[in-house]
Amino acid sequence: MNLAMDKAALEAFLARDFPQVGDDFVLEEVTPMVVRVRMPVAERHLRPGGTVSGPSMFALADVSIYLAILAMIGPKALAVTTNCSIDFMRKPAADRDLICDARLLKLGRVLAVGDAMIFSDGLEGAVARAGLTYSIPPT
Amino acid sequence: MNLAMDKAALEAFLARDFPQVGDDFVLEEVTPMVVRVRMPVAERHLRPGGTVSGPSMFALADVSIYLAILAMIGPKALAVTTNCSIDFMRKPAADRDLICDARLLKLGRVLAVGDAMIFSDGLEGAVARAGLTYSIPPT
Amino acid sequence: MNLAMDKAALEAFLARDFPQVGDDFVLEEVTPMVVRVRMPVAERHLRPGGTVSGPSMFALADVSIYLAILAMIGPKALAVTTNCSIDFMRKPAADRDLICDARLLKLGRVLAVGDAMIFSDGLEGAVARAGLTYSIPPT
Amino acid sequence: MNLAMDKAALEAFLARDFPQVGDDFVLEEVTPMVVRVRMPVAERHLRPGGTVSGPSMFALADVSIYLAILAMIGPKALAVTTNCSIDFMRKPAADRDLICDARLLKLGRVLAVGDAMIFSDGLEGAVARAGLTYSIPPT
Repeated sequence: MNLAMDKAALEAFLARDFPQVGDDFVLEEVTPMVVRVRMPVAERHLRPGGTVSGPSMFALADVSIYLAILAMIGPKALAVTTNCSIDFMRKPAADRDLICDARLLKLGRVLAVGDAMIFSDGLEGAVARAGLTYSIPPT
Repeated sequence: MNLAMDKAALEAFLARDFPQVGDDFVLEEVTPMVVRVRMPVAERHLRPGGTVSGPSMFALADVSIYLAILAMIGPKALAVTTNCSIDFMRKPAADRDLICDARLLKLGRVLAVGDAMIFSDGLEGAVARAGLTYSIPPT
Repeated sequence: MNLAMDKAALEAFLARDFPQVGDDFVLEEVTPMVVRVRMPVAERHLRPGGTVSGPSMFALADVSIYLAILAMIGPKALAVTTNCSIDFMRKPAADRDLICDARLLKLGRVLAVGDAMIFSDGLEGAVARAGLTYSIPPT
Repeated sequence: MNLAMDKAALEAFLARDFPQVGDDFVLEEVTPMVVRVRMPVAERHLRPGGTVSGPSMFALADVSIYLAILAMIGPKALAVTTNCSIDFMRKPAADRDLICDARLLKLGRVLAVGDAMIFSDGLEGAVARAGLTYSIPPT
């Protein structure tokens, strides 16, 4: 399997098409079916008690799988999330970035399924795990 | 069943403890085990193609179930989301508020389970459906 | 919306195409987008402690949504489950049938989404809630 | 981390406490937080079109995580499944056993979370992926 978009192409796509969120996410690694994305944790992601909000972690998992799909099929198709099931397992550290390791488990003609494991950078034990399904519209 | 917190008490709690997100959500109705929450859709919630982002809908479902729990158990306990499974079914309208109808299906000693149905205000057909589980720490 | 298959047609389909499980399920009501299915609880569904097994409840939710889809689109298409998220909320009674109220929330061209609420017959409080997605192959 | 129950102890437990399903599952490997379970596919697991039923795969994921938990905490506690989200990704082969690789991602005081990847023995590409949460009652 080859990449349809490499790291630089994905970064350019993110900056251009997702200006609202592009700053929230840093693409660290892209290989076929697998990406690693960093989310620099900022004040706006925090919740009372000094932890990162659930929606922030959801957003990180969602964008990571999305980028993993685009890396394989290119920017033409507009994939949309149809399902996400996420388990929040540990309280993320407020003073560390989040790291998301995402991989595609299936890349079909109409559906793609991936899972995402989220960590507080440098700490053991995933803070969240998510499974996501994307619908891939016909070209 | 009686409410431990009514609408005014929940609004005050939201404004004080969740200043980051309090403006995003308007509590419309509170009855035992059931709440309705409005999310005024703003530029920051939108995505390319003129639709509301998945993380925004996740956040709406999450806060709605959270408020439904607090309404029943009061502000003392710090409930945390442990699981969310969300189906995105239709593209939300970019120019309409989102409305979330949330209800608790179980309110146990350690776990609460609720479901949330999200609509574009005034349009038929839910745009998303979510089931959430919260862990309720011992008092 | 009209039914493509009514109760009698669905029963005949179930008996012919699902002889392994047909005896497990009794179709009680069929209306557009909504079905009610009864599962007579038998020894083989039980678990230690006198409760109905999780896989039995999963099977009930799965077949109920499947029948709700077939009722609308007819027996031609071979719909397959792509995702199920199920919350087990209360211990089912071992000596009562299970009742599943299932409804379709979306019936699209390629995906159908439904939810199912499962009760012990005659008891209040759902024992389980499930959301399911089916993929509908092109005809 | 040490095992509270090894392979032989888990097999004896399964045979004694789950006689209804014990024959369906063969424990292949047990290490801390990780188990591998084989399900010999038989006529009763099949569906039209020569594939293994969804409830059979659900049952395999469920028992695998359950055994992974018991391996760590011993047979005293009666853990119960509270949530399962499962993605069915590929059609399992009808003439091959299913293999489930299950691991615990969190083993807390009241909740355990695990994920399970299910394969048709010898074939590439998981047929299903599941995330499960178990509630662990106080001892």
